[in-house]
Amino acid sequence: MVSAHNHEGASPRPPAGKVRFELLTLGDELLLGLTANGHLAFIGQQLGRRGALLQRNVTITDEADAIAAQFRESWARSDVVITTGGLGPTCDDRTREVIAEVLGRKLVFNPAIELAIAERFARFGRKMTANNLKQAYVFERGDVLENANGTAPGLWVEQEGKVLIMLPGPPNEMQPMFTEQVIPRLAARGLVRDREAYVQIRTAGVGESALETRLQPIFDRAGPGLSVAFCAHQGAVDCRVSSPGGALSATRLEEVAGECALLLGDDFICYGHDSLARVCAELLRAQEKKLAVVETATGGLLANAFSEVCGACKFFAGGVVCCSNDVKMQLLDVPECLLLQHGAVSNEAAVAMATGAAETLGADYALAVTGFAGAAATAGGGSQVGTIFVALFSPAGVWSKKLSYPGPRSTVRVRAVNAALDWLRRELLRAQRGGQMPVTRIGVMQ
Amino acid sequence: MVSAHNHEGASPRPPAGKVRFELLTLGDELLLGLTANGHLAFIGQQLGRRGALLQRNVTITDEADAIAAQFRESWARSDVVITTGGLGPTCDDRTREVIAEVLGRKLVFNPAIELAIAERFARFGRKMTANNLKQAYVFERGDVLENANGTAPGLWVEQEGKVLIMLPGPPNEMQPMFTEQVIPRLAARGLVRDREAYVQIRTAGVGESALETRLQPIFDRAGPGLSVAFCAHQGAVDCRVSSPGGALSATRLEEVAGECALLLGDDFICYGHDSLARVCAELLRAQEKKLAVVETATGGLLANAFSEVCGACKFFAGGVVCCSNDVKMQLLDVPECLLLQHGAVSNEAAVAMATGAAETLGADYALAVTGFAGAAATAGGGSQVGTIFVALFSPAGVWSKKLSYPGPRSTVRVRAVNAALDWLRRELLRAQRGGQMPVTRIGVMQ
Repeated sequence: MVSAHNHEGASPRPPAGKVRFELLTLGDELLLGLTANGHLAFIGQQLGRRGALLQRNVTITDEADAIAAQFRESWARSDVVITTGGLGPTCDDRTREVIAEVLGRKLVFNPAIELAIAERFARFGRKMTANNLKQAYVFERGDVLENANGTAPGLWVEQEGKVLIMLPGPPNEMQPMFTEQVIPRLAARGLVRDREAYVQIRTAGVGESALETRLQPIFDRAGPGLSVAFCAHQGAVDCRVSSPGGALSATRLEEVAGECALLLGDDFICYGHDSLARVCAELLRAQEKKLAVVETATGGLLANAFSEVCGACKFFAGGVVCCSNDVKMQLLDVPECLLLQHGAVSNEAAVAMATGAAETLGADYALAVTGFAGAAATAGGGSQVGTIFVALFSPAGVWSKKLSYPGPRSTVRVRAVNAALDWLRRELLRAQRGGQMPVTRIGVMQ
Repeated sequence: MVSAHNHEGASPRPPAGKVRFELLTLGDELLLGLTANGHLAFIGQQLGRRGALLQRNVTITDEADAIAAQFRESWARSDVVITTGGLGPTCDDRTREVIAEVLGRKLVFNPAIELAIAERFARFGRKMTANNLKQAYVFERGDVLENANGTAPGLWVEQEGKVLIMLPGPPNEMQPMFTEQVIPRLAARGLVRDREAYVQIRTAGVGESALETRLQPIFDRAGPGLSVAFCAHQGAVDCRVSSPGGALSATRLEEVAGECALLLGDDFICYGHDSLARVCAELLRAQEKKLAVVETATGGLLANAFSEVCGACKFFAGGVVCCSNDVKMQLLDVPECLLLQHGAVSNEAAVAMATGAAETLGADYALAVTGFAGAAATAGGGSQVGTIFVALFSPAGVWSKKLSYPGPRSTVRVRAVNAALDWLRRELLRAQRGGQMPVTRIGVMQ
């Protein structure tokens, strides 16, 4: 919702990409490590998608003098300053007043906000206290960013050709406000691009440098105006093509990305930022198939990967997290003699677990992950640490493979989950094409 | 491992608590939101435990000029500057060189580090490349912090009565280096306290203000030297007692905390920072009992809560994540007629799921969580969003209760997991005392 706004000081703006953005995250709870600073990652990513690089993020205490000094400095060297936090109703939330004073602006009472706050309290059956009215004070000649998920509205002020944006601290209030109100306003003023600044191709199965080598001929043909950036993360590599100078049109960038996708075949996951779980979900839904999972080393992470996908029940039959052989035998009909002969961490056990999960949970596809993720804190441990077996059950057969990851436990776990999901994705793509799995119906892939 | 060190400029140090700490986190990947800045939360918390408040965290691009300008500023206003990142082998890792120049110090080649890097490469069967040797350059008259989990050592430099600490970026390298090497060195120089600066009591079941009211008589008796801070997080409230002026001894603080714990009874979780899952794990282990979990709305989070507890297989039988009634019926013997009569989200279903999980997985205790966590992105949705049923099966009986949480999906999920774990903890405490559950053996708690 973009309400009316005021431009003060109509000085010429720098072109998007050269705009100096700075983020001030306020709060002792951040400096004391009581709350993680997720605002930097979110806002940095949102700006990055629109071709802007956040130049700096400063986290400081919410003490009034510190805020005033830091804001003065940030305002002097930036085109856009974004603050998060300090807009709450209590007496230690002084950010609004302190910054108004630095800018030499008045705060005025806004009855419409008071009404919205009162209505929100009434809806939840709570009583509004007097200190909540503090949140109804806004900058004179500033704009208000409505808050659908909380009481503190965001504030938008323009002065000296610069923009100040003050946002509430809770992520579920700040994030929709940023994407729905802040980004469109910034775009309307030419401070960020009015569309994604790059086309992103998400890939799996190819390392960063091998990917570059494979795609280089396409980049060469596209010409000198093309800029390419790679970013590897836990089993996937993103490739972003852009044209910072504007030599290549958006349509041309999409063509280049399309050529890359075609060349990569099944190593291409998707355009944009979808997760592997979401891509698998789409394929399962389109094919009207159901998935089951069973896991030991990943302890619920694989099942949880689908929790952010809407309507997971449509394609996700369920999951089993097992720690003991008893559970594998009892719930998944894994034969005891198999576990005794091959061990609980083996290709054979993984195959039996995947098969058992599919049958017991009535699913068409099943993933099993078992292995040694390592001790919680460090990368130390036995020689088998980082060894993971993943099995995939599909209507076409069941297979298992052994994987090995260096790194700490948390990395091994995420890599294992991503490897399992990527394998499922490839098998779903093949099923979609009506292709056949080579070799035998039950096998071990080396 | 604390190696020999050099003091330069023996100017008097400010007392711990007044020391100005600043953290510089370096890297475009942080500003672009490709990586979350977990260093702030970790280092802030570690310093906080030793009575030091991080004054500021600045995240900037790893461009050389920006690093030089920012470091100069941070160094001027601080007693201790900590940097993370930029110590890697590639050409864009220039932090070491840039900062050496600002301080006017020489970097010297350290053959022992070269040897350690070469050995590490050999151990993983990889070839060391020439650019890795960059990491063997250290400050002349500076100290080296050994890195057990990577190639880049940390660097410790003292100059002008100030301390510079440069740490590698990967969390699994930085974190043990910080707790094992940095904290003891800081304590040895009186820059942080040589023990925890406060005694923390972790509680559940009492709101922040009600907790304060209950404990106030104890605080009043302890006298004016006592400082108390509360911190609420997703179903638990921490209370920290300290004596910043030193009026109360550590022993006296422990006595005060002990009085609080005694007064709170089962609302007291633990001293320190243990998770609810870890506390439950200890109780289960001590009583030689096994736990099973079954969950719908929390999709694997409850099972995963135990994944960071070492040796979980000793007490954790396993978990089931179910999306469909079929799975509940098939795997957990939940009667179809019950689901049809009461609905899948009901006290009755939760009780049947907990019972089924305990029986099928062969566990003594079982937790079931079912409900409506809400849509992924916002707090919107149907009127039942935030309604959760938790059931607890124990040797003494099985019970269910209905809970309701406002807030976004992620909050509802975490609150539901914590509520389930806290209930289990209380039941385990009662079992330990040999107490009886009141009312009937199968019941619904309102």
